[in-house]
Amino acid sequence: MPREATHRMDGRISIHDSVQEMYERIHNDGLSNVFDRYDPQTKIRCGFCVEGVSCQLCTGGPCRISDKVGATHGTCGIDRNAMAMRDMLLRNMMGTSTYTHHAYNAFRTLKSTAEGKTPYQITDTDKLYWMCDKLGIDKSGGPEQAAIRLADFLMYQLSSGYDEPPKMVEVFAPEPRKKLWRELAIYPAGVMHEIKDAAASCLTNVDGDFVSMAKKAMRLGIATIYGSQIGLEMVQDILFGTPSPHEVQVDLGIMDPDYVNIVFNGHEPWIGVACILAARDPANQEKARQAGAKGIKVTGSIECGQEVLQRFTMDEVFNGLTGNWMTIEPLLATGTVDVFAMDENCSPPYIAPYAEKYQITMVSVNDLVRIPGVEKNFDYKPPEAANIARQLIDWGIENFKKRKERNITAKVPGRVQKAIAGFSTEAVLNALGGKLDPLLDVIKAGKIKGVTALVNCTTPATGLHDYMTVNVAKELIKRDILVISGGCGNHALEVAGLCNTGAVAMAGSGLQEICKALGIPPVLSFGTCTDTGRMSMLVTEIANALGVDTSDLPVAVTAPQYLEQKATIDALFALAFGLYTHLAPTPPVTGGPELVKLLTEDLEGLTGGKVALADTPESAAEGIEAHIMKKRSQLGI
Amino acid sequence: MPREATHRMDGRISIHDSVQEMYERIHNDGLSNVFDRYDPQTKIRCGFCVEGVSCQLCTGGPCRISDKVGATHGTCGIDRNAMAMRDMLLRNMMGTSTYTHHAYNAFRTLKSTAEGKTPYQITDTDKLYWMCDKLGIDKSGGPEQAAIRLADFLMYQLSSGYDEPPKMVEVFAPEPRKKLWRELAIYPAGVMHEIKDAAASCLTNVDGDFVSMAKKAMRLGIATIYGSQIGLEMVQDILFGTPSPHEVQVDLGIMDPDYVNIVFNGHEPWIGVACILAARDPANQEKARQAGAKGIKVTGSIECGQEVLQRFTMDEVFNGLTGNWMTIEPLLATGTVDVFAMDENCSPPYIAPYAEKYQITMVSVNDLVRIPGVEKNFDYKPPEAANIARQLIDWGIENFKKRKERNITAKVPGRVQKAIAGFSTEAVLNALGGKLDPLLDVIKAGKIKGVTALVNCTTPATGLHDYMTVNVAKELIKRDILVISGGCGNHALEVAGLCNTGAVAMAGSGLQEICKALGIPPVLSFGTCTDTGRMSMLVTEIANALGVDTSDLPVAVTAPQYLEQKATIDALFALAFGLYTHLAPTPPVTGGPELVKLLTEDLEGLTGGKVALADTPESAAEGIEAHIMKKRSQLGI
Repeated sequence: MPREATHRMDGRISIHDSVQEMYERIHNDGLSNVFDRYDPQTKIRCGFCVEGVSCQLCTGGPCRISDKVGATHGTCGIDRNAMAMRDMLLRNMMGTSTYTHHAYNAFRTLKSTAEGKTPYQITDTDKLYWMCDKLGIDKSGGPEQAAIRLADFLMYQLSSGYDEPPKMVEVFAPEPRKKLWRELAIYPAGVMHEIKDAAASCLTNVDGDFVSMAKKAMRLGIATIYGSQIGLEMVQDILFGTPSPHEVQVDLGIMDPDYVNIVFNGHEPWIGVACILAARDPANQEKARQAGAKGIKVTGSIECGQEVLQRFTMDEVFNGLTGNWMTIEPLLATGTVDVFAMDENCSPPYIAPYAEKYQITMVSVNDLVRIPGVEKNFDYKPPEAANIARQLIDWGIENFKKRKERNITAKVPGRVQKAIAGFSTEAVLNALGGKLDPLLDVIKAGKIKGVTALVNCTTPATGLHDYMTVNVAKELIKRDILVISGGCGNHALEVAGLCNTGAVAMAGSGLQEICKALGIPPVLSFGTCTDTGRMSMLVTEIANALGVDTSDLPVAVTAPQYLEQKATIDALFALAFGLYTHLAPTPPVTGGPELVKLLTEDLEGLTGGKVALADTPESAAEGIEAHIMKKRSQLGI
Repeated sequence: MPREATHRMDGRISIHDSVQEMYERIHNDGLSNVFDRYDPQTKIRCGFCVEGVSCQLCTGGPCRISDKVGATHGTCGIDRNAMAMRDMLLRNMMGTSTYTHHAYNAFRTLKSTAEGKTPYQITDTDKLYWMCDKLGIDKSGGPEQAAIRLADFLMYQLSSGYDEPPKMVEVFAPEPRKKLWRELAIYPAGVMHEIKDAAASCLTNVDGDFVSMAKKAMRLGIATIYGSQIGLEMVQDILFGTPSPHEVQVDLGIMDPDYVNIVFNGHEPWIGVACILAARDPANQEKARQAGAKGIKVTGSIECGQEVLQRFTMDEVFNGLTGNWMTIEPLLATGTVDVFAMDENCSPPYIAPYAEKYQITMVSVNDLVRIPGVEKNFDYKPPEAANIARQLIDWGIENFKKRKERNITAKVPGRVQKAIAGFSTEAVLNALGGKLDPLLDVIKAGKIKGVTALVNCTTPATGLHDYMTVNVAKELIKRDILVISGGCGNHALEVAGLCNTGAVAMAGSGLQEICKALGIPPVLSFGTCTDTGRMSMLVTEIANALGVDTSDLPVAVTAPQYLEQKATIDALFALAFGLYTHLAPTPPVTGGPELVKLLTEDLEGLTGGKVALADTPESAAEGIEAHIMKKRSQLGI
């Protein structure tokens, strides 16, 4: 499907009826939105940018590569492959930085919690002590003392020096990978150094070699997963509980206009959790009732919601998950949201008009997030989380009154979808009776051909909203390939009903049999894009159990509808991890033919990983299946 | 002068005869070079990129702003001002990262030196103890112990947390600025956090507010100067000596083909200094003579050269400085270079063909720098510096033999220029008898109207190579404005003869009188772009001595021919520091009219700083003079 593939088909913009319905309200109300904004961009799209051969970095340019006019290199002398790879490295570094911001906040939240300064508590002491054991941290003095030591250690590790390889990689990466990464000189230092050095390598006249930059990108990917993601997810498990499967509700139909609705959006869960805790206070519920509401509900949007969804059960306060980032504007248009609290990343910049139109109080609760027209801004500081949550609830009650005064018409799509959220390595092991053998046995027996991790965002660039994500997953499970999913793509699958045992019927007969026996859906919701680290832990366990390298496994990765820089750094890690990695849309690299060859062919000889390009669900799934069958055959199963 | 201003005029490409002469050799030899590569780019330049309203970050795009087709915002919803500012913040973050890479290497080099593992030594113990006193570091146990503690402290400070403001800012920034920066919420955390958070803020759907991003860019600038630059320059002073004025030789005429010539290029001086030390070994000189050479000379190119130039006197081994980054290809074409050793940044990516053509052994001596076709690559590790230097000398001798065997014709421009290098705050104070009063007196008396820091690169975007830099400086000194200079622009001024007492005649009568009295040139060579921190220390001293804020001073900054991201982050600092900051060419912001207004007008009300745009030397100098006269008048002098 070409880059200009329509994001409109048969009058629709989304595969989800709920999003479609709300889009129509937005459109008719004359509000700007991502779907409509995509249209004029297709008229003015730059082919050089699409191919990755447009460089804006310095005053020697802006440059483009065009053989026609003799512009075979940038002014500085950079070639087409390096120009495309440099921009890719730079974008990936942004993804790493964002994950690392989240990680640093997780570690300081753990420390602050152990010091008694936050509304949170240490929930999973087993995991706390397990992490301490893994990392050689003294556990004495009770959980608080151990937690403080763990938090300090993890914060320090973020900046560990060149001559001091980060312990997180040493401890959590598979042995054969560590050896390979050393040989390829992509064994990372602390992730903060990798961020700095990747950015510095992209400076004008520093690294002009696309192979070198591709290796740096993989090193950055390794640093991201081990230095930031695994640590932060384990710390969130310690704070809020390790995910275990349970039924939740999703989609826009969960919104009820008669409640004070606090919605938290983004990736970091701090204020969302604090709001749930505050809303559980009967005094706050009573305040809401006195304002004419039925009470207060706290709802999650995108990754913030997923972080909570996978760890919290539904109750009177926690209301579930609305959907992914392209569902944000549709959600705001339901006329049910009282507070829209934006935590780190994925809050589109042009949403202030929705606040006015539908009477919403918008608030940033993260130092990074600033939205034009939104004047309520907090920087997250752990000891202030409880106060911020109280403030949001007060603003929510005030907003509810105004929403009623202004007679804002609520329009809530009828659909509520059930999903099973909360898979994790521990949950999988629990479901299997404490060891992986039953899973390995059904893989060996071919009932499950293999496993594919679907991690991604959503984008208008590959057809309807969530079309590719949902259909790639359908094609995979049909082929008896188990899907584990994370990120905005995971929300798409949850909303589409694929993370529900009702979807078992869509699976091939082998996978159906296993799903029925274990009572699991054919798509296991593993959480957010940040849970790529968690997924890598499962893959590592499988490889270790089989005594092979990760690249030997019948495992693949797909990002069939990725948007941005967090998704792409996850993909870079997957390549370093030795995995076949399907990407759609095609990244802006096609202007560099040698770079394309490196990523799609030659890399396999280095790490075992490779990029696969495919623009239809069928071709993507066929490629993945072929790879999995090849790996099965090589393993002799 | 418009963005497509010709970089060719009357058959020339450079104002320097030496560069012009060598360009003609390169061109006639059919080698690709920066001057010729600029031509086709002018035919294909993207107007959206020039104006900063082209975004390549995510698959919602690439996007452009074009009202004509209704593309008023990017797909995500970002507006034209934020689109331009976001790219600017991202570019600046790259500059900060590169300075911080240098800083981290400086600190580990100091530590390693104190541990006796490098060929360097602690040269300036006064400065070591002064830094310890400033920062409250225990000086006991001798210089080595103090140096280890200082190095550890500075490394730690790079990553100091959000709740722990970096001590370097506390100690070195002027009091009124610290107060203002706190009020504006641009007081930084450790520079590694600022890098991460700036990058994360640029992620799709994070910060959509151009004012917020402009503030983050200034915060990053403050973190850069205090967190990275001042620390690293002081540490280099400790290691190699605090700069003091002395006569040196510059320009391409310094190359002698009868020597084994080791040239070091880039910004970090480690391997350059190690080569000088190794080349002083009579055994190595003898080896060179046995190979038919007159001996070994070590020559500096661009900032690496300047770092050494400002601290080392010329001797039989150290041969001076060739010029700035656009002089690199001309230098390589002299047919005199045996080893071209590339340290951090400013090695253009398409120079390998010069190695073949003119018989040069090219080597990267820095982990960041990788050049296609260059296969000799070292990562810098302090304990290996001596070995690397020995290896380079051996390769140089081998190359010399091949150069002679191949009868490579040397072509060395006749011109050798004398310059006075090595100014610093300490040197200025020494020249004035230990206190600033004499300088303040002549400023008050109007003999010197004010001071302008010229910090910058060079670029083909504003006319001939070094045209704007040299002519802005000439216009300023003519107006009795003292120029202190750093960066590639400084090399331009040195090569053009402006850092020489011979240039005094070009100054206005007041400045002439002072230069003659003190025996100084009208342009004081303050070093590299990294010495922006050093220059800020002088400005801070002046402000403190007068008891005013930096924004009250008759001081300005000009970057009349900047290329890249290190120059721009220096400019961002200057804005936060409250200074009038002239930039040419116009940065890619003109597509965002509110952003332009913020930078060129409204910012003055916030920090006292502002961006001034001017494309001719006369208009740039006129603007600076008017600003200086306004400040003088406000000070009542």
